[in-house]
Amino acid sequence: MRENKILTTFKNGGAIINGWAQLPTSFAAEVFANSGWDSITIDMQHGPVDYQRALEMLQGIETEQTPAMARVPWNEPGIIMKMLDAGCLGIICPMINTRAQCEAFVGACRYPPMGYRSFGPLRASMIYGDDYAPNANNFCITMAMIETKEAVDNLESILTVPGLDAIYIGPADLSQSYGYPPKADPTVPQIVETVEYIVNTARKHGIYVGMHCADVAYGLEMVKKGIQFITILGDSRLLQVASMNVVKQFKSGAATASAQASGGPY
Amino acid sequence: MRENKILTTFKNGGAIINGWAQLPTSFAAEVFANSGWDSITIDMQHGPVDYQRALEMLQGIETEQTPAMARVPWNEPGIIMKMLDAGCLGIICPMINTRAQCEAFVGACRYPPMGYRSFGPLRASMIYGDDYAPNANNFCITMAMIETKEAVDNLESILTVPGLDAIYIGPADLSQSYGYPPKADPTVPQIVETVEYIVNTARKHGIYVGMHCADVAYGLEMVKKGIQFITILGDSRLLQVASMNVVKQFKSGAATASAQASGGPY
Amino acid sequence: MRENKILTTFKNGGAIINGWAQLPTSFAAEVFANSGWDSITIDMQHGPVDYQRALEMLQGIETEQTPAMARVPWNEPGIIMKMLDAGCLGIICPMINTRAQCEAFVGACRYPPMGYRSFGPLRASMIYGDDYAPNANNFCITMAMIETKEAVDNLESILTVPGLDAIYIGPADLSQSYGYPPKADPTVPQIVETVEYIVNTARKHGIYVGMHCADVAYGLEMVKKGIQFITILGDSRLLQVASMNVVKQFKSGAATASAQASGGPY
Amino acid sequence: MRENKILTTFKNGGAIINGWAQLPTSFAAEVFANSGWDSITIDMQHGPVDYQRALEMLQGIETEQTPAMARVPWNEPGIIMKMLDAGCLGIICPMINTRAQCEAFVGACRYPPMGYRSFGPLRASMIYGDDYAPNANNFCITMAMIETKEAVDNLESILTVPGLDAIYIGPADLSQSYGYPPKADPTVPQIVETVEYIVNTARKHGIYVGMHCADVAYGLEMVKKGIQFITILGDSRLLQVASMNVVKQFKSGAATASAQASGGPY
Amino acid sequence: MRENKILTTFKNGGAIINGWAQLPTSFAAEVFANSGWDSITIDMQHGPVDYQRALEMLQGIETEQTPAMARVPWNEPGIIMKMLDAGCLGIICPMINTRAQCEAFVGACRYPPMGYRSFGPLRASMIYGDDYAPNANNFCITMAMIETKEAVDNLESILTVPGLDAIYIGPADLSQSYGYPPKADPTVPQIVETVEYIVNTARKHGIYVGMHCADVAYGLEMVKKGIQFITILGDSRLLQVASMNVVKQFKSGAATASAQASGGPY
Amino acid sequence: MRENKILTTFKNGGAIINGWAQLPTSFAAEVFANSGWDSITIDMQHGPVDYQRALEMLQGIETEQTPAMARVPWNEPGIIMKMLDAGCLGIICPMINTRAQCEAFVGACRYPPMGYRSFGPLRASMIYGDDYAPNANNFCITMAMIETKEAVDNLESILTVPGLDAIYIGPADLSQSYGYPPKADPTVPQIVETVEYIVNTARKHGIYVGMHCADVAYGLEMVKKGIQFITILGDSRLLQVASMNVVKQFKSGAATASAQASGGPY
Repeated sequence: MRENKILTTFKNGGAIINGWAQLPTSFAAEVFANSGWDSITIDMQHGPVDYQRALEMLQGIETEQTPAMARVPWNEPGIIMKMLDAGCLGIICPMINTRAQCEAFVGACRYPPMGYRSFGPLRASMIYGDDYAPNANNFCITMAMIETKEAVDNLESILTVPGLDAIYIGPADLSQSYGYPPKADPTVPQIVETVEYIVNTARKHGIYVGMHCADVAYGLEMVKKGIQFITILGDSRLLQVASMNVVKQFKSGAATASAQASGGPY
Repeated sequence: MRENKILTTFKNGGAIINGWAQLPTSFAAEVFANSGWDSITIDMQHGPVDYQRALEMLQGIETEQTPAMARVPWNEPGIIMKMLDAGCLGIICPMINTRAQCEAFVGACRYPPMGYRSFGPLRASMIYGDDYAPNANNFCITMAMIETKEAVDNLESILTVPGLDAIYIGPADLSQSYGYPPKADPTVPQIVETVEYIVNTARKHGIYVGMHCADVAYGLEMVKKGIQFITILGDSRLLQVASMNVVKQFKSGAATASAQASGGPY
Repeated sequence: MRENKILTTFKNGGAIINGWAQLPTSFAAEVFANSGWDSITIDMQHGPVDYQRALEMLQGIETEQTPAMARVPWNEPGIIMKMLDAGCLGIICPMINTRAQCEAFVGACRYPPMGYRSFGPLRASMIYGDDYAPNANNFCITMAMIETKEAVDNLESILTVPGLDAIYIGPADLSQSYGYPPKADPTVPQIVETVEYIVNTARKHGIYVGMHCADVAYGLEMVKKGIQFITILGDSRLLQVASMNVVKQFKSGAATASAQASGGPY
Repeated sequence: MRENKILTTFKNGGAIINGWAQLPTSFAAEVFANSGWDSITIDMQHGPVDYQRALEMLQGIETEQTPAMARVPWNEPGIIMKMLDAGCLGIICPMINTRAQCEAFVGACRYPPMGYRSFGPLRASMIYGDDYAPNANNFCITMAMIETKEAVDNLESILTVPGLDAIYIGPADLSQSYGYPPKADPTVPQIVETVEYIVNTARKHGIYVGMHCADVAYGLEMVKKGIQFITILGDSRLLQVASMNVVKQFKSGAATASAQASGGPY
Repeated sequence: MRENKILTTFKNGGAIINGWAQLPTSFAAEVFANSGWDSITIDMQHGPVDYQRALEMLQGIETEQTPAMARVPWNEPGIIMKMLDAGCLGIICPMINTRAQCEAFVGACRYPPMGYRSFGPLRASMIYGDDYAPNANNFCITMAMIETKEAVDNLESILTVPGLDAIYIGPADLSQSYGYPPKADPTVPQIVETVEYIVNTARKHGIYVGMHCADVAYGLEMVKKGIQFITILGDSRLLQVASMNVVKQFKSGAATASAQASGGPY
Repeated sequence: MRENKILTTFKNGGAIINGWAQLPTSFAAEVFANSGWDSITIDMQHGPVDYQRALEMLQGIETEQTPAMARVPWNEPGIIMKMLDAGCLGIICPMINTRAQCEAFVGACRYPPMGYRSFGPLRASMIYGDDYAPNANNFCITMAMIETKEAVDNLESILTVPGLDAIYIGPADLSQSYGYPPKADPTVPQIVETVEYIVNTARKHGIYVGMHCADVAYGLEMVKKGIQFITILGDSRLLQVASMNVVKQFKSGAATASAQASGGPY
């Protein structure tokens, strides 16, 4: 069976730079996968992507054999299982605030007797081979989002759910939950300390940690703290920022340039 | 009727920074339109976009009321008329190498008696108002691509086709046509001179000029030469370059950061 | 931030004529938005529309800046949050029969501390501006459907859920729930009285009221009773009725006309 | 093989009321087909519809077994043959102005030795049976649009192309071609006389006649003149007119109704 | 109202051969429906199909008037009701393990007072007639999947839920639940006996039985045991097996044939 | 640059078994690619596939790195260039009947100075590497369909067009062109001899030969004659035949089996 490179990097203590795919078309996903990300996560929660487009995006990503995951819209077994069957190597599930929610999530990702995932890995078996099914429980990554005060209060009980591999810190929701504005790359001391507490507690329990960041430098700081899976913005925002930069550069020079041009004899 | 801002800028001697949309989804187009471009051209020739997606992209772009044009796949009346009916403010037509080709192109964009465009501006009338149809011949921009040695040889006969508003220089094809590698932002003297010859001849005949560029600085140089419509790369390439930069920055720092992280007591 | 015109009309005591969009294509939605409705609601429950098409329809509607809402398929946080992120100014949620269901629905529409909506208003911020997020809790309309006897029995406890803005009466389900045929524009006394009871009780609690109707005259009667948000049929049914009328008119005259025609010398 | 009911009606001297489908979704097409039209033509020229959506629309229409045709974007063999293979019972081809254009069009619709249609009726054979192919040349309707002065000047040479079954009059383009505004239901004497001339000449040569109309009464007048295939507006316009009527009726009554409502004690 | 042929066959003691549609396109569904299946079930759980494609597939299937059902992704009222409104004659619901789950499922399929299905059968009424709604509770088939040990333990309490029509045995999940590999066409004695127990118990309670099989011979054995609804593989797997056979046959003969060819004088 | 395995096999004198993809969805294409075909050709002429779906199908096929080609709808430069840019390793062009048609086709596939292909291989460069463009003229296969008597009459002048790599024999159109029924796997002596004449003449000029077949045994016979590229049916037909076989097998056994079942005590 093909290696799950995310898991290998986790085990080796390395750090993954994860692309965040929100543009709902397989071609954008293929271009994105061609850009060197260690993994790509399709964002079906805040990204404008539903199942059918996500499936096509997975095909675009697979042309580069980039490891692909999905963040599902909510902790709902139907969509979790569909995304695993479609070949996702892992699921990021939003808003895991209690042990019961975490058990429901992890159970949806694991075949019996570990969980209650239904059998029928149509595309996953086609992509990863006939030994996908017997190995899937150790192959697919379960990544619970820790992004509320309630989740922090219940942290150890969440982290000790059997079958949980990793957590993913959502800094905007976390900040908001503590009464601060919903910002990426938090610098508010209480949030910074909370993030450290989450990371240290997770690592103590052998749980890998990922985080959503907006800036590479901030992301690298997080790697130093033990976070091994860093997302920087997303395709939609990267496109917009790059576009705005071009427009700004052009406009700052265009008036002068046009004036010179129209000075001609025409 | 709503103003065609591209035309206004042309007449005022200003310069337009044009976004080039190749990602075939209305959401990417809307994000792109939200980035400040003066106009956006949907690339149906080398971009992986066909009519139905282009229509949806036009809707995404229209939410920002950004002026939208299309580069059609080829000089074929069916698709040219469909894109005008869909609300494009102008058509960029590839590979106009002879006066006859230019006449066929321009004729497809103009209602009788100026041309042979068929009547039925379903979406254009809805967007621009009931006075669209009687004014369309003066409202929609015809932009012929000059991108071969043959076109340069026939330049004056092309430029003097009644109803032609503008030309668009394709530097990669032009370079290749003269026996050089197909590069953007050409620096080969023969191509540089040819571009200048094209610009000067066009302006002499009152024809506006656009050009595809890869770098803002190069584009601004072209504005100084009298080019009023500059494209820089396209959404697909902007996304890829921005992604590659993030990945590169992260990877250059990640090994160090990971090493520090794994030094912990976990 | 752009005004939520539905809310403004509610506050001013006015009445809204709401279009009901069930045809799953952005072009039909754009044509529909071009027809003068005060607002348009995309029906994802009984309309054959899922998320991806709904997103494209929102773009079609936004070209006219018509305020857009969605009726979600069911009281499920994933789709409610996705539609808000996509730029809906309000959510109509079917089958709110108990206070707990209403709390779950309203909570999904409100950021903390009012609710548990997750942060990531990708398109909403793009459309309405960066001040969308801090103002969203007062900007987005929560509209619970009251359409069963159980809901009527629990009416006051539903209406007093903090953060509920409005209710929407579903007359067909309501009638059926009381043992009558599922009809629009009910005239059965028990249902008429129940509707009046719902309206009066809602208004007493400062909750705005909407209702699904089939006939304009009936809708205007409802406005007199204090209902401020009236839907008449939907795009699918309007198209069908208009088509049937054309066919009927033609067929009633065609036999005669054909007979005259074939009397010719051909 | 299933009967081509359009052809049967033509032969019996009857008149067909034809629906014009421009909303690019199979569900709208199915609703439209459910409204009683004798036939439905998918408008791929001025309607925002390309091949893939047209195929799906044909499936929606086929659920009612309504005879379906397509107006193609232009006189181009690729799309003509694709639409026949997809199961269209006839093709309306725009802008047939010369005998050569008509021969090219008709040839694309006929298998050898009558024409040059390529063999591969994948869906047509599935829908109409294995005897589709040997009978297709007598089964599929060729309908050339007569909509320019040039076409009228060449009328007899066009009408006598072997294999041409019918013509379709485009009054807007025809009017424009003669220097009048592009209007449906023309009343300008020159155009009215031209239409009569076209109808009479066609019928003299055994060619059936269709026409695009905006009003049923006008269409019935045309039937009296010998036109056997009448289109009234299209789904897009029918939807918009019906919507505008509802909005107008509501708004004229709403102010009064609201005033009464807000007089209450709330 | 049109007959529900599946129900008729159930009542007559006959056996249905059911096609399993997983290829997410209306054209494949139409081809599949053209192949003679007694019914077709769209697999939205393990098949890569979501609502919008399923709707289009239903239209493709309806061109043949083949009875269509759907297996929904999970026991969730929103999607169950949407698929019934879209015209499914029955719903197969996965993972019904308890009486409460079965009640929730059946209730979502039945209008009051039998259940809590919301009224709005947009496409179902269009396809089956205006008498669809009053008869739907006796017309639409509820089919609960029995596929875990837990379900077997709760079998009688599940089977006696009022309004349940049928069950569908999922042998792969069932085997896995008992600790065996997830295989179709089980031969492990414990599973074989469990299947027999399920069938006999269901028939005792007047509940019809269906089963997913991989081989026709096995399926016919199941019919002998009283199972009346047999699925064999699915379109995706049938396509793959047929393709592999062609490739294998060709490759086994190609080397020899090529050798002969290249022996020529060329 | 990645090897074009089709070309390598051609040069080595081997034979290719080519899959023919007509089901318009990327998932079917991926399943098809997973079945072992040496190459897959997307049929955009008689297959119900247009550009956007073809692009997605190419992505599905690329997940297996199966060499992919397209048969375009017609000899039109716009679609030919779009399919090459999308990453097709070759183009099969229908109805090449004259040297001029062949020159137009080949020219559209070759960059200057060999042809007039426009530069912009967006996806092809991404898939095959930056050295795609300079090598494309020797890398992409041009395959002209020989399928009419006119083409046979002009055979040598077609075969000697510089840049033509291969021909593809369409037996149904060829048979029809000679006055026989349009059948695959022709046995009519005149057609058999014509095929042999085509093959021998092509091989004499160093042109590779492909052919559309319906049966493997017939295809292997063709390989013996020197044909190196054999298509057997297509995905749509393979699916239908496989389905019909299952239905037939089941139905022949079901009556007996049902009778036994209903003999029980239930």
